[in-house]
This record gives sequence, C-alpha cells and structure tokens, in this order.
Amino acid sequence: MSKKQKLKIIPLGGLDEIGKNITVFEYGKDIIVVDCGLMFPDEEMPGIDIVIPDMSYLVKNSDRVRGVILTHGHEDHIGALPYLFKEIDVPVFGTSFSLGLVENKLKEHGLSTNVKMVAKKPGDIFPVGCFNIEFIRSNHSIPGAVALAIHTPIGTILHTGDFKIDSTPIDGEMMDLARIGELGKQGVLALFSESTNVERPGFTMSERTVGVTFDEIFRNHQSNRIIVATFASNVHRIQQIINAAYTYRRKVAISGRSMMNAINVAIELGYMKVPKNTIIEIDEIEKYPSEKLVIITTGSQGEAMSALTRMAFADHKKVSITHGDTVIISATPIPGNEKTVSRVINQLFKLGAEVIYESLADIHVSGHACREELKLILSLAKPKFFFPVHGEFRHLMQHAKLAQSMGIDEDNIYILTIGEVMELGRDSCKKAGTVPSGKVLVDGLGVGDVGNIVLRDRKHLAEDGLIVVVVNIDCQSKEITAGPDVISRGFVYMRESEDLIEAIKDCARKAIEDCLNKNAGDWNTIKSRVKNKISDFLYEKTKRKPMILPVIMETE
Amino acid sequence: MSKKQKLKIIPLGGLDEIGKNITVFEYGKDIIVVDCGLMFPDEEMPGIDIVIPDMSYLVKNSDRVRGVILTHGHEDHIGALPYLFKEIDVPVFGTSFSLGLVENKLKEHGLSTNVKMVAKKPGDIFPVGCFNIEFIRSNHSIPGAVALAIHTPIGTILHTGDFKIDSTPIDGEMMDLARIGELGKQGVLALFSESTNVERPGFTMSERTVGVTFDEIFRNHQSNRIIVATFASNVHRIQQIINAAYTYRRKVAISGRSMMNAINVAIELGYMKVPKNTIIEIDEIEKYPSEKLVIITTGSQGEAMSALTRMAFADHKKVSITHGDTVIISATPIPGNEKTVSRVINQLFKLGAEVIYESLADIHVSGHACREELKLILSLAKPKFFFPVHGEFRHLMQHAKLAQSMGIDEDNIYILTIGEVMELGRDSCKKAGTVPSGKVLVDGLGVGDVGNIVLRDRKHLAEDGLIVVVVNIDCQSKEITAGPDVISRGFVYMRESEDLIEAIKDCARKAIEDCLNKNAGDWNTIKSRVKNKISDFLYEKTKRKPMILPVIMETE
Repeated sequence: MSKKQKLKIIPLGGLDEIGKNITVFEYGKDIIVVDCGLMFPDEEMPGIDIVIPDMSYLVKNSDRVRGVILTHGHEDHIGALPYLFKEIDVPVFGTSFSLGLVENKLKEHGLSTNVKMVAKKPGDIFPVGCFNIEFIRSNHSIPGAVALAIHTPIGTILHTGDFKIDSTPIDGEMMDLARIGELGKQGVLALFSESTNVERPGFTMSERTVGVTFDEIFRNHQSNRIIVATFASNVHRIQQIINAAYTYRRKVAISGRSMMNAINVAIELGYMKVPKNTIIEIDEIEKYPSEKLVIITTGSQGEAMSALTRMAFADHKKVSITHGDTVIISATPIPGNEKTVSRVINQLFKLGAEVIYESLADIHVSGHACREELKLILSLAKPKFFFPVHGEFRHLMQHAKLAQSMGIDEDNIYILTIGEVMELGRDSCKKAGTVPSGKVLVDGLGVGDVGNIVLRDRKHLAEDGLIVVVVNIDCQSKEITAGPDVISRGFVYMRESEDLIEAIKDCARKAIEDCLNKNAGDWNTIKSRVKNKISDFLYEKTKRKPMILPVIMETE
Repeated sequence: MSKKQKLKIIPLGGLDEIGKNITVFEYGKDIIVVDCGLMFPDEEMPGIDIVIPDMSYLVKNSDRVRGVILTHGHEDHIGALPYLFKEIDVPVFGTSFSLGLVENKLKEHGLSTNVKMVAKKPGDIFPVGCFNIEFIRSNHSIPGAVALAIHTPIGTILHTGDFKIDSTPIDGEMMDLARIGELGKQGVLALFSESTNVERPGFTMSERTVGVTFDEIFRNHQSNRIIVATFASNVHRIQQIINAAYTYRRKVAISGRSMMNAINVAIELGYMKVPKNTIIEIDEIEKYPSEKLVIITTGSQGEAMSALTRMAFADHKKVSITHGDTVIISATPIPGNEKTVSRVINQLFKLGAEVIYESLADIHVSGHACREELKLILSLAKPKFFFPVHGEFRHLMQHAKLAQSMGIDEDNIYILTIGEVMELGRDSCKKAGTVPSGKVLVDGLGVGDVGNIVLRDRKHLAEDGLIVVVVNIDCQSKEITAGPDVISRGFVYMRESEDLIEAIKDCARKAIEDCLNKNAGDWNTIKSRVKNKISDFLYEKTKRKPMILPVIMETE
C-alpha cells in the first residue's frame, strides 16, 4: 500500500457524547468498527425506547467491513449490534464476557444463529483486515474490558475504551500499564482516551473499597434483611455482595431479568465465583428468615419498570419492603436520573426501610479514570496525536487542555465531530468530508420511522394537548350537515369546560360558514381558517396553544 | 384562652419537598401562614407553567387568616401570593427586600394596589392575631432572609426558614445565633428547621469565598470579555461580581428581566451598592472594548428561554458569544437541571468561549446549612419538639436522625405530611385529621383546570401519539356514507406510512360494518370496538399504543 495512504477515523453516533458508541477506522479497502452501542433517549424524545447510530455508511460499504471490535459489554458499546446484524454480515471480536452479553442480546432479538463471534483474551493480537488488533487488559465497571492497540500500516493507534486504573481489582488483574508503556516507547501514532471523569481530580477509588463498606454494613445490620441495588453488569460489585453474604451466612436471591442474565453469563464464563448453596430462587425467600437474606436487584437508577422501583411503590410480586429492611443503593445517579432515584429513596423510607445511598456511605466507585489516571496514560503512551473521546464536548475540551499541559502539541490534538471524517497520516491530520451519521430512533418495532416532525408533534401534544374539530359538509349545497363536533384531549377536562367547548364550536361554525358563504377556497383553506380562528380564540382565552386538527367530511 | 387549646400546624403544599412552600399555624380563631411559594413542574407535568399549593383551606377560613409571614423572597416562598391575593384579602409581613420582590410580582399579575404589605426588620417583634412574630436575622442566598420566632400562647416556635450560618457575610450581618441561644434558654417548644443539605457534612462555605475566586478569575482574564450567569435574587453574589468589575475597571451590563428586577429592588432598598457609572445598558456594550465589560445574566440553570441559553444557541439579540469570551456559571445545577446546564456549557465551548463552572473552580456556595450548622441550631434552640422541614422525605429522615443523635427525644420528632393537621400542645403532639391540600397546576391563564386526567392524556399523547378515525354514518340506512378517514399526529410520519394508514382504515371499516350489520349497539359501542380493533392491530404491527380517537358523525 502507498505510504501516502491515510487512516480514516469516523465517529458515527452519539447524543451528548462524542466518539463513544461507535467509531469507524478505515484504511484502504478495510473498515473496522470499534464498539456498536446504543444511546438512551432524553426528554426531547418522548416515547422513544432507544436510540441507535445511523449505520448506513457501514451498510453501504458492507463488503469492506472486516469486523466489529468490542472494548467491553456495556449497552452503550454493544446495544446497537442486533440492528447492525440485521443489515450486514460481519464478525465480532471481543472478550468472552462481552460476547456472552452480545449472545443474550441477539437471542432477545431472535438473531442468534448466524453471527460469527470470535472470543479473544487480553494480550491477544489478531488480524482484522489490514489491521492488527491487540487486546490490552484494562479495568472498568464490567469484567472483560480491554483497551485496544490498533496496529495500522501507518502506525499504532491506542484506544483506551472505558477504563480506570485499579491496582487492587477484584479479579486480581490491573490494567496492563506495562504494555501501554512498551507501546509508548515503540511509538504511538495516536491516542484515543476516554474523558468521562476528566473534571474530577485525583484517582478513582478501587472497586475493592466498596467491599469494605459492604462488610461494615452487613456487620452492623445482622438482624435486617438486606436489599442491594446495583448495575446488572457490574459483576465485581455483585461478587463482593455475594462475598459479604457468604461471610455473614446469608442466602442471595436475584431480582430483575438483566441482573439474572448478567450473573448467569458471569458464572458460566468463570468471571464470578459463587459458593455452593448461596444463591436461591426469588420464590424461595419466604422459606428463610429476613436476617438470612440478601436480595440483589436492578433499579439503581430508579428506572420506572425496574425491580427496585416496583418494590418501592409496592408493585413487586415477590418482595415487599417493610420496616426492618435495609436497602443499599450501590450506584450513583447517571446525570438526568437524580430525581427518579431520589423518589425511590423517599418511597423506601416511607415504607419504613433504612436506605443507604451514596451521600451517606462509600457504596459506589466510578468505573472511569479521573485526571491523574488520564495523565498516567498520556505519559505512558506519549502519543503524537491525541483524540479525547467518550465525553460531552465540555469533557473533551478539558481533556484536550490536560493533554496540552502534559506536553502534547496543541496542533496535534483534535476533537472529533460525529459524522465527520478525520484523515490521519504519519505526520498530519485533517478533516475530510462527512458521511451519513447521527441518531436513529427506535420506538417499538419501528426503527427510524419516528423523526423530527413526529417528535415535534409529540412535544406539542404533551405541552398543550389537542382539539379535534369535525364537521360534515354537503358537497352540493355547501352547507354544514353535521357538527361541528369538538373533542379535546390533554387540553382541559371537558366535562368541566362545557362553555369553552361550545365557544370553540361556535368559532368553528362561523369560520366555516364564512368560507362557504364567500365560496372561498377548497377544504384546505377552510381547515386552515378554522385552525387559525380557534387558535387565536383559545390563546386569547387561555394563553395556551393546543394542537388543532380540523376534519372535514364530505357527504353528497 | 383555655390552657388545653392546641396549636395546629398544617403544611399545605409541596411536590417532592415537605413543609417548605407554605405552612399554616393555627391557634383558636387565628390563622397565620408562613410563606406562600410556588413549585416548578416536573417531567410528569408537561405543559404546566407553575404549580401552586391548594389554598382552599385558607379561602374557606379567610375570616380567620391574620397574615402571611415571609421568611425570604425566593419564588418557592412567595410565588403563590398573587393567587392567594386573588382569593382573599390578607396582610403580608416581610423584610423590605422580600416585599420589594412581592411588589414586582403583583405588578406582573396586575394586582398591586390593594394588598397591605408591612415591612419589618430583623429584631422586630409584632403581633399577628394571637401570635407574636419575631424576625431573627439569618443568612441565605438572598438578602433579607429571616428565621421566625413564633411566640404562641402555648410556647415559642422557632422556624429557621432557609438558612446558612455565614460568619463573614457580604452585608456584614451574621445569623443572630445569640438570639436563638437566648430563646433556647428561655425554652423553645418546637423547632422547625430546614433540611436541604442534611446529607452534607461540615459547614457551608461563606459567600465571601466566591468573591476571592471572582477576583482571581478577573485577574487572570484581563483581556477577555467576562460573562457571569447566576441566580437573579442572589444579590450578594451580584454585589461581588460588581465589586470585581469595579476593581478591574470594567463596566457591567445586565441581561435578563428577572435579573434587572432583582437588582433594581436591591439598589432601591439599599441592599446593593453600585459605584457610579459602573452599570451600563445592555444596548451600550458595543461602545466598550470587550476586555472592559462584564455581562451579568440569568440562565445559570440552562433554562430554555433564559438569556445565557439564548447566548449559547446564538439566539440572543444583544450578545454574541465568541472566541475570547470567558463565561462563568456561578451556580450549581438544581437536581433535574444537570443535562440542560451541561448542554449550555457544551454549546458555549463550541462557540469558542472558555467556560468556568462549578467542577472547575469555587464559583458557587450553597445557601443552605450543612450538618454542623444544623447541629448548632439544634444545640442552641434545645427544642422540646422537633420538626424537620424543607426537604424531601429522605432529608427529613436524616435530619430526624441527626436531631436524635443530638439528644432530642425520638418520640418528640415528627415528620409532617402535606395536608395533615398536627396538633401541638405543651406536652404532646398528635395527628388530627386532614385538610384539602396538594398541588394546583397553572397552565397559561388556567389555574387548576388541568388535572390528572388531562396530564395522563398529555403523557399518552407524548409517548405514542394519536390517531383520529372519522366516519360518517347515515342514521336511517345504517351505512357508512363517508370515511373512515384517518389522521395521525406524533405516531409515524404519515407520508411514509401510507400502507399502514390504509390498513388502519380497513380495520376501522370492518369493525364498524360488523357492528352495523349485527345491529350491535349504539355509537359508543361502535367507538369502543373501533378503538380496540385498531389498538390491537397497531400493537401487533408496531408494538406501540397510540391514543385512538374514533369520531362518528351522523347524517340523515
């Protein structure tokens, strides 16, 4: 291949965050995809279940896509895979735990059979197209997380994935800093490093510190039933809960489907070790005294349908929270979830439980590197080019500044834009056009059939409600033969607003008759006249602007 | 009066928080109201502008309401006053700054003339009905904040209002701890103390520390235009920005109506001192070089229509953010606002500004007492009964525990419930029924005309959109004479879903003809059949459940 060939880098999707869910690396005819994750809808997307990246670029170039490489198995890194697999046939490379979670996911989508999944271990180097991919052990809030060295024809790219540096990890294996240092000595062309916690000084605490807190809580609550909510995929956290349960001779029951799935995968693949006769079925909890039980549950983010939320609002089939229960929320609210989490906490207190959460005890640590860890990676990798990724723009800016303070040339630091192609050479980097990218909304079975117009209507309906005005007009005589009828939803409570509804009818009738008398225009003209008249009338009367849907039926 | 008479305490309103916005104290025939605030709608209340307490209890007993006592002038303590004044005639007592803000508010509602407003100073004791009200100086993030000693026939109630203990406040006046200690020695029957920061250890930093940071930022950014966003009512914060501007010889321009109002009231009443020729009109900023300007603006919470948000999204008429601008967000996001604030920060960075926010520098302090301050008040007041207030249930629980650890008898600590009457005697406290209470939604000009049914419809419409099915049926022949027509909004984009829409029409036609053929039922039966059939069909096809509105028009 020509020495002048450039490496193309394209982040394809993301909402607030950049370079996180899916990134394309392309050299010559070969395309690889790093991660393929989903995003969760925000409050601007009512009714949307999930958001996936626009992957049409990959579909269009499917013959060139050599593989998907997974850094780890979190939803925002694997969740869009089923949608990709529905479109193209491509092998996926990951650690066994990441692939175990993918397999579960494919089963749910009824897709399991045909996908080629290749399990690799930290330390493995394997070719994918013209690239040699190297898995480098890292630490994160999920097992089997790796950083990637992507050995390309023009040099080595180091991609951290999501990481922290945990020198006392639960599985005994620290991030392979030695290898990163070695690569740094050999020369790293570009570093892609995650930026989530760049605004936090110091080092992220070790996962192990949470175990100490669990032990203390278990010791001090020996006569209480203990319920712990955490992230389903945080296997090491769950391992520590199980360890504490074992120490204090409690049985462990699991609530929540995603929790069950993750634990099953972890046990099956050897990522979790559970002493015999420790785990019991949730149906069996009645057989044991409260003080001999731990229930591990989903819902640490206060998600509406999660097990913990259902327990809090007395809507869980198997578990009723009561005085004497101790509930530990072993997580921190993801930005945007503060209120829902707080509501669950309030509700648990109201049921008489003692609730232990982050502001009261050290029952959570982040899975992401803080500033000193980010600096360590920068100083070990000594990259020529630096791309801060995995963060909102503000985080990428701070990470760029940090890199600059560590001696990286300001001109060699780039913040990627979703859909924008970055062309990286041995000595240069520049923007080179755009590709289709962005967000595709998934609502029920529909993928991409809800767009901006539909969302705008949903928001309008949510804020001001709706008024339907129906009228029958005789084609020949140009007279109203029935109606106008008015139906409203989400506007005012109709039974209590009869006068207003009558006034709307009058307003509609006048507008229509006016048009008909003047012989003015077609149905569309009449409709828009009705709309405007009612809209003005209602704004005057109520200072609200409901959506107005005039319907004209013709009869002969 | 009988010695056996009890003091009734009733918190009337609140969303997540209890005992904050409005509290009724009642003895014999006399009712006083402490604060009369509004609440901001949450994501469960789309389209709602504000939420006010249900004040029908006060309206019903208007002849007994002797006065409203204001602890301070924040919206959540004064914002419902206009709605109360529309219903009943009652004098309001507050410090001059609180009343200045009320006056502004009444003007906006076109209500200014008739309300009796009585300005009192910290240290003043004055009768309201059978109560003697004493204003005790406190510190908070607004000037003119007071704690209350409510001297009742059965003993003294101490109510902290919102407070912190600032030993180096900007106006030189620390909370009057000596007076609280004195009252404690004389005997405090009950303490009502705010609980916002009970989960935070230590002491809240002094407002003055923010001034030090401002000075440093101004010193290090002498060639940049500086834009500072903060809360409009945080007069001492604004004073410190103005001080820094004066020190570094900058002119100050104000953006945002609420900011203008608050500053005008503060200057007029002597709560703020502005050196001559410092403040300029926002229209005049073009006349000065950037490095000689400070713009103080609203929008520190990323509110959609606020000045800073408009600047960030290049939608502000007077101020365009550009490279070289330094934007300071001197606030912390109120829970629930994290994402909107973050979006504004990202956007400002994208425009090339340097943005300084809480995680990067000490540019904000809380206005609320942390644990050590709460303990100080408890130990000075030594109350017999303790009511933790101003907080979510979780906070009240923690505050209750804290009080217990300070030696207050567990049996004398009560958490109030909104609408529940608490009867306090010299030696006893017990629940005594309920009164109408809770939230009244304000949407445009409508007060209380949006209730649960309307909100439920709005949420349904927002999540799944709407399908209107209109059909004309001839009364005599029982035949469809026109339609069915289908209109959808917020469901799928109609132009791209013609097949689906046709299928819905077929489905509706079949359901209707089926009913008509069988001569089954009235219009309502037909409607509900159409609804169910389409609903099932669409759920099967799309896994979505739009609202379905069948409309049957009769013609003869």
